[in-house]
Amino acid sequence: MIDAPDPARKLSHEIIMECEGRTVGKTRNETKVTLLGPGGTTFEIATDEGSYPHGGDATAPSPLALFSASLVTCLMVQIKQFAKRLRIDVRDVHAKARLHWIAEVEGRGPYVSQPVGFSIDIDIDSDAPTANIRALVEAARKGCFVEQTLARANDIKHRLKVGDDWIDV
Amino acid sequence: MIDAPDPARKLSHEIIMECEGRTVGKTRNETKVTLLGPGGTTFEIATDEGSYPHGGDATAPSPLALFSASLVTCLMVQIKQFAKRLRIDVRDVHAKARLHWIAEVEGRGPYVSQPVGFSIDIDIDSDAPTANIRALVEAARKGCFVEQTLARANDIKHRLKVGDDWIDV
Repeated sequence: MIDAPDPARKLSHEIIMECEGRTVGKTRNETKVTLLGPGGTTFEIATDEGSYPHGGDATAPSPLALFSASLVTCLMVQIKQFAKRLRIDVRDVHAKARLHWIAEVEGRGPYVSQPVGFSIDIDIDSDAPTANIRALVEAARKGCFVEQTLARANDIKHRLKVGDDWIDV
Repeated sequence: MIDAPDPARKLSHEIIMECEGRTVGKTRNETKVTLLGPGGTTFEIATDEGSYPHGGDATAPSPLALFSASLVTCLMVQIKQFAKRLRIDVRDVHAKARLHWIAEVEGRGPYVSQPVGFSIDIDIDSDAPTANIRALVEAARKGCFVEQTLARANDIKHRLKVGDDWIDV
């Protein structure tokens, strides 16, 4: 497992989130998400499915709705923060994203998912020259945790509880 | 841009989400996220930053809190849904994930982010044999939209509004 943030590390900061989730009823999940370390916060976040494709009651946004919001807002935060550091005057940021996946059934098994494409249109309210705004967006993309995660192939480790033991899956 | 779901496509289903976001005040963002197509839903989802590292007021979960919840809940949904298809009796699912990123400053520029590691511990309340539960988790991982997205390197397209035109970034 991963340790807590290392305070001795210079010119860097670590973000460690813990998320604990439980299934509740038909298709609803309830989670508690905590940012570890000083200044950390905990939020309760629920998800549910709509009628399509899983026959849920839409009591909360779906996991993919949260995913979509996280991609867009993480980039927007970096744009606003980096604008300050780069001394570019930015009033507001408006972004519109489209996220596309497909799930395909192989034989008689359950479906297999894959992403088809992601795109984000960004409109920045600023009087700064286009070259500066462009440089700002490029820096924000490199700083955006979600985009940098999506840009590489990640190995997610899974363990399954069997009796009192945990086995790797 | 991507078209709407293709209803003629057999044995597959497409998920297309649209997310429109605006910066509001210091570090808060407000988004509207829509699942396109029949049975689609729209949810308003806000994010904010806590005091660390961006000096926000924590009026809503952070983008990475939403990201964390989406990873965990997407997998949980597939486990519950696939249990039905595979005729494995599953009462409840409990999952606990840890998500770790680092942001490092290069020279005098703003920081560059990267993921360090993701892990999920899964506890499934079921009387089914371990081999069946293990096969269920393996199928659910393949069906999980978020995990399958993270497992590959994705190219996210960006366009920036300049006057009345859109330019690629």
